[in-house]
Amino acid sequence: MTAKTPEQSKTIMTDLVLPSETNPLNNLFGGELLARMDRAASIAARRHSRRIVVTASVNHVAFNRSIPLGSVVTVEAKVSRAFKTSMEVFIDVWIEDRESGLRDKANEAIYTFVAVDETGRPIQVPEITPETKIEKERFVAALRRKQLSLVLAGKMKPNEATELKALFQ
Amino acid sequence: MTAKTPEQSKTIMTDLVLPSETNPLNNLFGGELLARMDRAASIAARRHSRRIVVTASVNHVAFNRSIPLGSVVTVEAKVSRAFKTSMEVFIDVWIEDRESGLRDKANEAIYTFVAVDETGRPIQVPEITPETKIEKERFVAALRRKQLSLVLAGKMKPNEATELKALFQ
Amino acid sequence: MTAKTPEQSKTIMTDLVLPSETNPLNNLFGGELLARMDRAASIAARRHSRRIVVTASVNHVAFNRSIPLGSVVTVEAKVSRAFKTSMEVFIDVWIEDRESGLRDKANEAIYTFVAVDETGRPIQVPEITPETKIEKERFVAALRRKQLSLVLAGKMKPNEATELKALFQ
Amino acid sequence: MTAKTPEQSKTIMTDLVLPSETNPLNNLFGGELLARMDRAASIAARRHSRRIVVTASVNHVAFNRSIPLGSVVTVEAKVSRAFKTSMEVFIDVWIEDRESGLRDKANEAIYTFVAVDETGRPIQVPEITPETKIEKERFVAALRRKQLSLVLAGKMKPNEATELKALFQ
Amino acid sequence: MTAKTPEQSKTIMTDLVLPSETNPLNNLFGGELLARMDRAASIAARRHSRRIVVTASVNHVAFNRSIPLGSVVTVEAKVSRAFKTSMEVFIDVWIEDRESGLRDKANEAIYTFVAVDETGRPIQVPEITPETKIEKERFVAALRRKQLSLVLAGKMKPNEATELKALFQ
Amino acid sequence: MTAKTPEQSKTIMTDLVLPSETNPLNNLFGGELLARMDRAASIAARRHSRRIVVTASVNHVAFNRSIPLGSVVTVEAKVSRAFKTSMEVFIDVWIEDRESGLRDKANEAIYTFVAVDETGRPIQVPEITPETKIEKERFVAALRRKQLSLVLAGKMKPNEATELKALFQ
Repeated sequence: MTAKTPEQSKTIMTDLVLPSETNPLNNLFGGELLARMDRAASIAARRHSRRIVVTASVNHVAFNRSIPLGSVVTVEAKVSRAFKTSMEVFIDVWIEDRESGLRDKANEAIYTFVAVDETGRPIQVPEITPETKIEKERFVAALRRKQLSLVLAGKMKPNEATELKALFQ
Repeated sequence: MTAKTPEQSKTIMTDLVLPSETNPLNNLFGGELLARMDRAASIAARRHSRRIVVTASVNHVAFNRSIPLGSVVTVEAKVSRAFKTSMEVFIDVWIEDRESGLRDKANEAIYTFVAVDETGRPIQVPEITPETKIEKERFVAALRRKQLSLVLAGKMKPNEATELKALFQ
Repeated sequence: MTAKTPEQSKTIMTDLVLPSETNPLNNLFGGELLARMDRAASIAARRHSRRIVVTASVNHVAFNRSIPLGSVVTVEAKVSRAFKTSMEVFIDVWIEDRESGLRDKANEAIYTFVAVDETGRPIQVPEITPETKIEKERFVAALRRKQLSLVLAGKMKPNEATELKALFQ
Repeated sequence: MTAKTPEQSKTIMTDLVLPSETNPLNNLFGGELLARMDRAASIAARRHSRRIVVTASVNHVAFNRSIPLGSVVTVEAKVSRAFKTSMEVFIDVWIEDRESGLRDKANEAIYTFVAVDETGRPIQVPEITPETKIEKERFVAALRRKQLSLVLAGKMKPNEATELKALFQ
Repeated sequence: MTAKTPEQSKTIMTDLVLPSETNPLNNLFGGELLARMDRAASIAARRHSRRIVVTASVNHVAFNRSIPLGSVVTVEAKVSRAFKTSMEVFIDVWIEDRESGLRDKANEAIYTFVAVDETGRPIQVPEITPETKIEKERFVAALRRKQLSLVLAGKMKPNEATELKALFQ
Repeated sequence: MTAKTPEQSKTIMTDLVLPSETNPLNNLFGGELLARMDRAASIAARRHSRRIVVTASVNHVAFNRSIPLGSVVTVEAKVSRAFKTSMEVFIDVWIEDRESGLRDKANEAIYTFVAVDETGRPIQVPEITPETKIEKERFVAALRRKQLSLVLAGKMKPNEATELKALFQ
């Protein structure tokens, strides 16, 4: 399998915030945004692996800005690192102001997907070669995040998480 | 108002075909695709005009290819011509094969939107300057389509539709 | 196959405009109305052909009147002409005022459907015999519209479209 | 207020059974049919009263026939009797066979609605004059059903329910 | 099959009233509540029978209180009586005030489900042993309601409905 | 404000996996589960604070088990720790086998909500007093998670995160 670049999996999903997706403050429900990001990120993972993919985990997601009814929201997803059968996908969410046309970063999220065959068994995915500065930073940080997941799931002892330990010293 | 380019209104909406959107042959319902194209095209018109926009008409849309459940569908919309208060938006729909990653044109559609103020009254929009060869072709053809709309709506006599008449001689 | 009348395929779909179907001006989204008309028209085509039917094309649709949240909307669809394996369906949309009970025409649309067998292959449909004055007018105009479709799709040369040419002379 | 006929409130809602509305046996969910009937019946009550209406109660509804995915379902609603501020609406549900075109009664239901003003307060509705044999039967039986509701709600003593008592003697 | 208690089938469904589920007065649509109650009650019937279950009927449901947008609604369902292949399920609906935290009874409903095998044929269900005072009252009244259903459906003569007759003497 | 217990905010949302919520392997979409958990957790946060609440962040969520179409899924949410204006909510997800009635843990998630006033400004919430062993463990671990969030968001230096540092030494 030839290595791919993050750009090759880039997925853009621009859509409106519809009335059925808002909370009592007339902003997009957190849960709806989580669902949209899951669909966009799964397409990016599928483009990288050309396989059926299933959501394996969601990393820390911060909702920094509320997104009002009628907004135009752009969800951009790119695979940031490929492991043996799993892929970390980075998602950037932008909203744009109708009058000025300016785009603002609304939030950021990281999801992990596993590629599976028709019976649901994990299957190998191509490697990834980051190109831009930010892709390289995200590629490196992905390993720390993977160790963090394993530690939080009790599958790795904290003192074996070398990348992560370094952070706290 | 400064003229804009079609590229400035370009809107990409990539999403999955969900089980709730399929017909008895397990393909995307025509009606669902019409609704998705309407949302994408309305965002393109809004990006061009920076106004609230409402759908004014849908031109001839051909469904050449059926789109199966689970497909990744990309709807791309760009304003092709701006009139006084209305905008014609061209929409290209692509589906991609999961295994080969190849993209196929599934269909094409043309919608027209009107920019309105908060009370719903039509309001002027910027002009458009096509750049690429295909943008220029679509810009020219838009006038013929506008005449055709007016003729079909009984608001222009066929023999006054000069652009259109030329076609049939 | 015995010929049928347009009345035999008549389909009435009366429903409310729900909050999840409205745009920022609190009117029915164009895309939602397109989807409802598609469902109603597909039932009319199915009643005429007694086959599975798929949307083949949407002709020019004009949105003349906005339809506010909470309105009662009636979509009426009837097959206007049958070709070999395809059917043109005429759709009239009415809204009614709650207080006066008066019905107003909101818009009109024309969709084309193809009858298919279980494998998706086109299959023959019965002929149609228009009865009323308006059914007869729509039946005749359908041929012009079919020629227009073929011309727009590049499958017929404009100067071979005899019915259509006549319009512009 | 002039009396009206049941025919004047007649509401027809023909629609498909969509994949998102089915249970594990691939039939229409009971709950989805209850929601469709509520919408159709509320339109009938609104046509009779020309007021905002709210669902007051649902009488015994029997689901005699399962309705498979892809069926064409027709819900027909007519006001069967008007009381001071409330209206009983009778709903007949039909499904039709695609191949034979035959219609079968799938089930029957009775809902009651109250007309309210903009603040939600009950308000008077016109009387109703049944015309056909079945409309007259339903009109008479409506009084028995109203007594039954009052008895079941503890608002009428069983032995005061004269119409109802007669049934069991 | 061992008898079970109502408590063993108890099902709690707490959820928000979303904007897509409201009527013009901004309250939960009757039809939406009917659909939620159907899902909760079907889970209770499934827990009692451990079978696929289908809605057989809905008994009288009164909508005493309107439920505003944004409310927290709790639907509680418990099997109240088991017959040979069918189960009566009692549903209590509560709303809670955000500021005081107080719960109010919004309404009550009774649905009947039939347990079926994979081919849709009715199949036997376990008996039920009511425990609390209210469970015992509902268990006894269930027989009267069953007779009432049979009488209303024309499957039992009124004067054979001994339990029911007693009510009116 | 009096302190509350986690039990006082406990929220149970039992519901079916509907056909419109499944992926190509016929299992519940990750995104749909994220949305359901968000609704249940927001109700728990609202019960604790008696305020409008908005999603602030989602901590690491692992999807250990796929959840097939037709499953009964129970989402249980309880506030695990209250900070000044924010609340951490712990969510446990269970699925139950129809035939055996056995419940299996499908996954676990942690969301954070902020209580806001009508204008969207953060507002103080009551303290929480954990009671059971697991509630106490989650209460203690919440502080580590909060530090981790702050570190990941660049709002706290890793070496100031005393609780977290201890883990890696």
